[in-house]
Amino acid sequence: MLCLPHFKSRCVVLGCVSVLFTYLSLCGEESRQPNIVIIVADDMGYGDMSCNGHPTIRTPHLDRMASEGQKWTNFYAAASVCTPSRAGLLTGRYPIRNGMCSSVYQVLFPDSTGGLPANEITIAELLRDVGYRTAMVGKWHLGHLPEYLPIQHGFDSWFGIPYSNDMDMDRDTVKELNGGSLGEWHTGQHWNEPKSEYWRVPLMVGGQVLERGPDQRQLTQIYTQKSVEFIKENAGQPFFLYLAHSMPHVPLFRSKEFVGSSTAGIYGDVIEELDWSVGEVLKALQACGIDKDTLVLFTSDNGPWLQFKTQGGSAGPLRGGKGTTWDGGMRVPAIFWWPGTIEAAVIHGIGSTLDLMATIASVVDVELPLCAEDSFDLTETLFNCGLSPRDDMIFYRHQTIEAIRRGRFKGHFDRTASDRGEIQLCALYDLNEDPAERYDLAGMYPEQVSALTELYRTHRAGIVPAVDQLARR
Amino acid sequence: MLCLPHFKSRCVVLGCVSVLFTYLSLCGEESRQPNIVIIVADDMGYGDMSCNGHPTIRTPHLDRMASEGQKWTNFYAAASVCTPSRAGLLTGRYPIRNGMCSSVYQVLFPDSTGGLPANEITIAELLRDVGYRTAMVGKWHLGHLPEYLPIQHGFDSWFGIPYSNDMDMDRDTVKELNGGSLGEWHTGQHWNEPKSEYWRVPLMVGGQVLERGPDQRQLTQIYTQKSVEFIKENAGQPFFLYLAHSMPHVPLFRSKEFVGSSTAGIYGDVIEELDWSVGEVLKALQACGIDKDTLVLFTSDNGPWLQFKTQGGSAGPLRGGKGTTWDGGMRVPAIFWWPGTIEAAVIHGIGSTLDLMATIASVVDVELPLCAEDSFDLTETLFNCGLSPRDDMIFYRHQTIEAIRRGRFKGHFDRTASDRGEIQLCALYDLNEDPAERYDLAGMYPEQVSALTELYRTHRAGIVPAVDQLARR
Repeated sequence: MLCLPHFKSRCVVLGCVSVLFTYLSLCGEESRQPNIVIIVADDMGYGDMSCNGHPTIRTPHLDRMASEGQKWTNFYAAASVCTPSRAGLLTGRYPIRNGMCSSVYQVLFPDSTGGLPANEITIAELLRDVGYRTAMVGKWHLGHLPEYLPIQHGFDSWFGIPYSNDMDMDRDTVKELNGGSLGEWHTGQHWNEPKSEYWRVPLMVGGQVLERGPDQRQLTQIYTQKSVEFIKENAGQPFFLYLAHSMPHVPLFRSKEFVGSSTAGIYGDVIEELDWSVGEVLKALQACGIDKDTLVLFTSDNGPWLQFKTQGGSAGPLRGGKGTTWDGGMRVPAIFWWPGTIEAAVIHGIGSTLDLMATIASVVDVELPLCAEDSFDLTETLFNCGLSPRDDMIFYRHQTIEAIRRGRFKGHFDRTASDRGEIQLCALYDLNEDPAERYDLAGMYPEQVSALTELYRTHRAGIVPAVDQLARR
Repeated sequence: MLCLPHFKSRCVVLGCVSVLFTYLSLCGEESRQPNIVIIVADDMGYGDMSCNGHPTIRTPHLDRMASEGQKWTNFYAAASVCTPSRAGLLTGRYPIRNGMCSSVYQVLFPDSTGGLPANEITIAELLRDVGYRTAMVGKWHLGHLPEYLPIQHGFDSWFGIPYSNDMDMDRDTVKELNGGSLGEWHTGQHWNEPKSEYWRVPLMVGGQVLERGPDQRQLTQIYTQKSVEFIKENAGQPFFLYLAHSMPHVPLFRSKEFVGSSTAGIYGDVIEELDWSVGEVLKALQACGIDKDTLVLFTSDNGPWLQFKTQGGSAGPLRGGKGTTWDGGMRVPAIFWWPGTIEAAVIHGIGSTLDLMATIASVVDVELPLCAEDSFDLTETLFNCGLSPRDDMIFYRHQTIEAIRRGRFKGHFDRTASDRGEIQLCALYDLNEDPAERYDLAGMYPEQVSALTELYRTHRAGIVPAVDQLARR
């Protein structure tokens, strides 16, 4: 057991992480396992934080977190939509490996009967096994039948909704509003003036439904309150909190206090309330005197849902958004914060939510499950600003590899060719010089085309697709 | 004369700026006029600073300046290309009023014979008249004939180049490189591997040519050195320094120390050297103990030159770039810094380089010249985070109004109609909710269409176009 708040300075003296661990274990020094807090926004874009350049949304708490901690600017969600992204985050595995991406469906729907298989190991299980109290607050989206719920996957407690807040739509009520029709799926009036009664999504505690169609205006407030309560109740022992906000996924809701708080419309209000929520969590850690014992990550599950126009966010300088394998779909805001252990820095190395499993295993000094084969330990970067060990990222859409990044280069592959079992790189971008993926360099770098094609082949050869959980009905 | 470093706290006590001025003047309190430093990059985009979301360019000095000072996120250059933008910055007048924009030419060229008219009043003249030492270092671009040079417009000294660093191209040398042809204007090999000998631009001191075709790799270094020397030599008295960098205008050059400093290619290296330069200027102010007596602004003359692809910068989330009236062409990085007087904040209000004249006149307590009619005093925002007095911005291209912003709305006007003397709004954007100008709302807000059309009419009625200085040969 380790006194990790002093990790870095000791590490400099001893020169090596493994030596440090051995040394402290032998000395039996007073120790404390660090708490882990992961906060995930839903559909928030790379460009939606002020510290990532948003010109009108105010995010003072995230900005402070970034200026005190590490802001990662090349950090990827595991997929460009909810279900596979969250599966990857919690298991450290590309979702193709555990059936959490599908050749047909983007995500799990209320009529799905599949979910994250019982044999998958989550971060919550890893931590509960070594004595952590584990809580989830917010949106799950990895299976809503009893056998798939958070409490079956390592969480002592769960308060939240089982899937997206736009599901279980009450079509009759919505039709009434729209003169008998539902309108185009993303343009109906019910999006512009959302009311909680249009959506009958269940609010759950553990395995029980507390309410159907809860007042969504209160979701961010109540998630925050539950999170702060959990922190205060468990301040004396190691804990893991996974706070997965429902916002800013449409329909957009914010509490009365945040109506008009922003000049950037309802979307801006919603992000400002999320920012407030992050501030409340950090404040609770500080009030309990455990901020220096806690690793906090803020990130998003995928890029902005651009079809919803001003109700969708901004990918900033990046191309594309949610549901695409352009960087705007998968490169997400990411701030790691741990006062006294993580020093202020902007990190350009590649990271992913896939890496949380290995990173957390390293931080708490437990063995990484063998199955977390897509997860890299980022601690050398977090604690010593060393190079990130991750050099590549595979971009799946459904079960198809659409793009691969290796170092600074990203190749996009022809989807139709892939579906025929062929590999055909159709564009190559240098993301360091061209983050917006504008200028195809395939003709200029044949060796990169070959390398990425080979990486496609090797990666694909190592994949045994699991039963498609999203297609189960 | 005022002790302005204490401005804000005194102001709070007295409640009103004018009362403060009167009070301190009557008391004859010890005072010191603040120094003014304006640093302008050339063609640097809104998205090129790390604190505005660039994912791979490191700008630690600008980031620190932003975190200690005021970062303005809705700050506009006076025009989308060099000459009119710089004329507007120094005079507080839309360039249409002084002939510094043309119906034919974008900017002044080496064969131009026009320049900023002698009767125009610049910030340098305003400050020299009240006892300031005034220096310009860097690119002028407001007329290169003797009667138009900086030393004729209020600067005691000038070290720099009279126009852009891509002018006076040695066509023979360049043709030789390209197998007898110049190539497409923006794709020739001379851009990708620039050598100083391809451009014969003069390096000047006062009215004298020091050298033709100077080593452009040293420009940022030597500009910085001259600026720091000026600061050190004049630390004991009020001074005005206008440092107008030649970079990152193509051809891109950086000194040996910055070759490969960045992972973002030659453009990234160049920005990182500019960032270093900003750090050196701030360091010199601090070393002289005058940082708390100095207002510093960092900004750019217009958006990124996108045609040059990875050799052009990034407008971040904004649409378009240099030479266009999309916001990417004119909304620029802007950081005001004055330790002890300006408190850390992100400002969403509208500002412009046009406002420097009125703001500086206010800061040094001199009367604003009547002719600076397009300039707003931003001090209430700078010192008290009050609302910006600027509510609109006119976007000219050449001599035509292409767009107008009023509050959160920006209307684009049909250029052909304008040229016929008609006013025809063709798209309306809500920049607060839609900074990328994607979603036309003209149909939804007829009253905004009317208001912007009326503003066009009123503004245009008040303009008497001056002799076109850019067309003179």
